[in-house]
Amino acid sequence: MESKWFKHEQRVRYQETDQMGVVYHANYLNWFEIGRTELIREMGYPYQVVEQKGLLLPVVEAEMKFHTPARYDDRIVIYTRIQSYTAIKVEFNSQIRRISEDAMASDEMNMQADGDPQGELLVSGATRHVWVNRAFRPVRLDKELPELYALINQP
Amino acid sequence: MESKWFKHEQRVRYQETDQMGVVYHANYLNWFEIGRTELIREMGYPYQVVEQKGLLLPVVEAEMKFHTPARYDDRIVIYTRIQSYTAIKVEFNSQIRRISEDAMASDEMNMQADGDPQGELLVSGATRHVWVNRAFRPVRLDKELPELYALINQP
Amino acid sequence: MESKWFKHEQRVRYQETDQMGVVYHANYLNWFEIGRTELIREMGYPYQVVEQKGLLLPVVEAEMKFHTPARYDDRIVIYTRIQSYTAIKVEFNSQIRRISEDAMASDEMNMQADGDPQGELLVSGATRHVWVNRAFRPVRLDKELPELYALINQP
Amino acid sequence: MESKWFKHEQRVRYQETDQMGVVYHANYLNWFEIGRTELIREMGYPYQVVEQKGLLLPVVEAEMKFHTPARYDDRIVIYTRIQSYTAIKVEFNSQIRRISEDAMASDEMNMQADGDPQGELLVSGATRHVWVNRAFRPVRLDKELPELYALINQP
Repeated sequence: MESKWFKHEQRVRYQETDQMGVVYHANYLNWFEIGRTELIREMGYPYQVVEQKGLLLPVVEAEMKFHTPARYDDRIVIYTRIQSYTAIKVEFNSQIRRISEDAMASDEMNMQADGDPQGELLVSGATRHVWVNRAFRPVRLDKELPELYALINQP
Repeated sequence: MESKWFKHEQRVRYQETDQMGVVYHANYLNWFEIGRTELIREMGYPYQVVEQKGLLLPVVEAEMKFHTPARYDDRIVIYTRIQSYTAIKVEFNSQIRRISEDAMASDEMNMQADGDPQGELLVSGATRHVWVNRAFRPVRLDKELPELYALINQP
Repeated sequence: MESKWFKHEQRVRYQETDQMGVVYHANYLNWFEIGRTELIREMGYPYQVVEQKGLLLPVVEAEMKFHTPARYDDRIVIYTRIQSYTAIKVEFNSQIRRISEDAMASDEMNMQADGDPQGELLVSGATRHVWVNRAFRPVRLDKELPELYALINQP
Repeated sequence: MESKWFKHEQRVRYQETDQMGVVYHANYLNWFEIGRTELIREMGYPYQVVEQKGLLLPVVEAEMKFHTPARYDDRIVIYTRIQSYTAIKVEFNSQIRRISEDAMASDEMNMQADGDPQGELLVSGATRHVWVNRAFRPVRLDKELPELYALINQP
């Protein structure tokens, strides 16, 4: 029972291109992470606060499909949703989509999407994470940060 | 019938760390690519020449497992092998391993490994690629660069 | 007779931090470039179009002063102005500033600043550029792209 | 009375290129840092140990001249020397040079150069640094790490 899609818009940076004339593939993994950051902020619990409380959420598995490349200055929307979770781990789904230059600007940078992802699909993927403490030992989120667990757990 | 493992050693750069105190996860995908570059160079056909001849080998799928993180200044060995291939596509397997500070230095930076990968396993994964031309249209390697296809195809 | 300041707001990405717990210093040079890109877009001439017309604007000199470091998730404003220009070269001034979490959101992502830069100064600097063609030969902007030169040249 | 030049060789990574077909300019600042890291390691005091002892050496000023761009897979030599120092601050000079594909391989990755820098000059620059503690307060190196100060101070 996955969450709704959250979306975050940004432009492709020059630094993110390579000499193929497209975005270097490792950057999409970076964008997935930006999407997760914005999703968790939108939930009301910035990831920075999570770390301040001594928890980390490292990636333990990732998979990606590259459909068509993003190019310099493209308007990109990062879609992110929680695919599944327990008190110990979380799986996110991510989609990178391109929208046209004259697509209506998002009212806000980060928002909950009303319905299905829009735009041309460029890259899709999933990342799996575990909650750990600063010593990288697994912890239970419902014990360590029950208020965040409650936010994720709400229907 | 996969190829032997090729290895390439490097150190973790400061820029590759993040505020968790470990290597930011997207960098491993970059390291996988460095490993592929060195494998293909070792075969006798630098990737730069491939591009000069008008072919590209973009990633179409990637998957990664993160076992334990690399840290600043660690000595890292990137192991890469061709897992499978046809005239149209190639799959590589990659492993990122850590060796100790006093491990014997590699005689050469890039070399064919004698036997199994050595060192502490940090990240493992696979990437799948297709051969395309500059317009990103799929091509057959045996038609476009038969001399490279022969190198890959040798027993 | 320098131009007005243009501003562009963004957040610090996790990937941009290093194990010192602050933004890795080379990223500010990247942010300077994002500021220039947004300035030139705001002028009505996206840099992408410049390159499509066969011109490039590489950096030939850069200088930076690092006053205090940016941190993960900080709200950053990039201020950019044209310090001086001729038909052959351009000098930009750049400032990276931090604004508080509850500072009023910019009405638009990119805009011309009304008056002086606001926020805590983190990094300041300048970059000098020359107009070149695809072969990296210097060219005169007033000859090659007179419409862009006119935009820069307007009072 | 500056130190001798230290040199470190590496290849240009694909990820470091941009759609101009050359190395994205911010990467040279990263390479300067790699050069400083290798210089200090060569002196016998890895920067990692410096940080473990609670000291940091952040950049407070940088300046760079870009002469001609590096390209993918180029063999690059980073030359670094200490230009001047006190117990409070250090200034490094850096040069990025390109050597030909068939130049003799360095016997070691990091070494003290015998005499003047060799190869085609691509980028030159300087960075100024101050010694600080973990709270980013300035400290005196001769008080905090006299053994490192002695290494820098030796004739």
